[in-house]
Amino acid sequence: MTGIFDSGVGGLSAMKAARAMMPRCDIVYLGDTARVPYGTRSNAQIKKYIAEDIAFLEKSGADAVLIACATASSVYISEKMQFDIPVTEVITPSALLAAAATKNGRVGIIGTTATVENRAFENKLRQISDKIVTTAVPCPLFVPLVENGLTDESDPVPNEIARRYLAPFITFGCDTLILGCTHFPLLSGVISKQLPGVTLINSGEAGASALFRALSRKSRSGSGSIRYCVSDAPDKFSVTASRILGEKIEAEEVEIGR
Amino acid sequence: MTGIFDSGVGGLSAMKAARAMMPRCDIVYLGDTARVPYGTRSNAQIKKYIAEDIAFLEKSGADAVLIACATASSVYISEKMQFDIPVTEVITPSALLAAAATKNGRVGIIGTTATVENRAFENKLRQISDKIVTTAVPCPLFVPLVENGLTDESDPVPNEIARRYLAPFITFGCDTLILGCTHFPLLSGVISKQLPGVTLINSGEAGASALFRALSRKSRSGSGSIRYCVSDAPDKFSVTASRILGEKIEAEEVEIGR
Repeated sequence: MTGIFDSGVGGLSAMKAARAMMPRCDIVYLGDTARVPYGTRSNAQIKKYIAEDIAFLEKSGADAVLIACATASSVYISEKMQFDIPVTEVITPSALLAAAATKNGRVGIIGTTATVENRAFENKLRQISDKIVTTAVPCPLFVPLVENGLTDESDPVPNEIARRYLAPFITFGCDTLILGCTHFPLLSGVISKQLPGVTLINSGEAGASALFRALSRKSRSGSGSIRYCVSDAPDKFSVTASRILGEKIEAEEVEIGR
Repeated sequence: MTGIFDSGVGGLSAMKAARAMMPRCDIVYLGDTARVPYGTRSNAQIKKYIAEDIAFLEKSGADAVLIACATASSVYISEKMQFDIPVTEVITPSALLAAAATKNGRVGIIGTTATVENRAFENKLRQISDKIVTTAVPCPLFVPLVENGLTDESDPVPNEIARRYLAPFITFGCDTLILGCTHFPLLSGVISKQLPGVTLINSGEAGASALFRALSRKSRSGSGSIRYCVSDAPDKFSVTASRILGEKIEAEEVEIGR
């Protein structure tokens, strides 16, 4: 059994990828909706939340955990956090994929303001190769666009917002862009329209691959059950998650860190 | 001395109005940024937050408190919460103003999804007059637009989003619209462009008037000091608040409910 957590629905992109890779693995998904969004909190607060989220997943039977949230992943790395079970995150595998994908050595990064400010993807890329040049742009309106379902390629609103955010990458001339927030793959169509020919790195998928490698064959072989747990307002989560997953799910409320 | 609180920066519209009405009143403003946004939480959580926020303000010396957040105001009313000091909210005074302003008896309401779902403004209007007909529309993208500074009347993005949200009010034919979220007055220009001739009720201003009436003359006569307290990430709050207020402010971090 494995655990996957995010502050809300963003990590569902990673969960979808994990389920496709390991259809028989039992999964507990935790959305820490009582404390969403993590991106505006201080590192000290986020560190406390990560410890409490992982403690819950471990108690629920997880053999390994994926932090399916770039903000939490960056805090996990910068604070050098340690746990009893294997913990994977979305930054390292995304940076490795981007470094392998780029041909011209120019990699763009988009994320929440917190993720761009803490430079986690850039630092990791620099560790991997000193030949890669990066530019990072915060896209704070992408998360509310996804949460409110404004993701259609033909809709002028997400297109105009994407045009403004992504213009620097045209000047920069990157051939690879890291979608450094697990919400962003839902805007892939809109993003590709602005940056045709650029390889998009889905950080949720990258994180799911890292999780796959962290799990033993035994841990991956279960009944393929999925439990959706949230720390507040399960009905609201169920509605948004059902829309994102394209299937009806029902979340249960759990106590985190109390 | 008085206390004003919101989950974040939204309540600053009420604080600005309170300062204009009572320039010598000492004010403690609390932004509960560790737990923003309230609009997505359950009533039980919000009730706990309100009690903790008011306890902090009372301890800081406030003689009366304004709940400058429509979501928290609606929970305060529906849960019939009681405190040792006078507590005012934004819903009752907004509904009274709207009832006085409307000539055709048709009042529109916009707010966050939580505020529209709990029908607090409608219930209050119905208590005031059974002749008023209402329509309410949730505008979930307005808060992120304000938080990210996309409030310009000439910007196609807020205009297009406002056009979609506000179209039902043209059909409905209201002459008065309650801006049922303390963030929304910052989008007044954009909203008026879609609904020319409609009277906009600023719930922050309405709340400030109610606070004025709840305070004794002595409580209103101080040195005109303002203290900005937040429960997390004071730097981020200071940047956004300075932009909204048009003057440089510095927030201090405080512990709430721990």
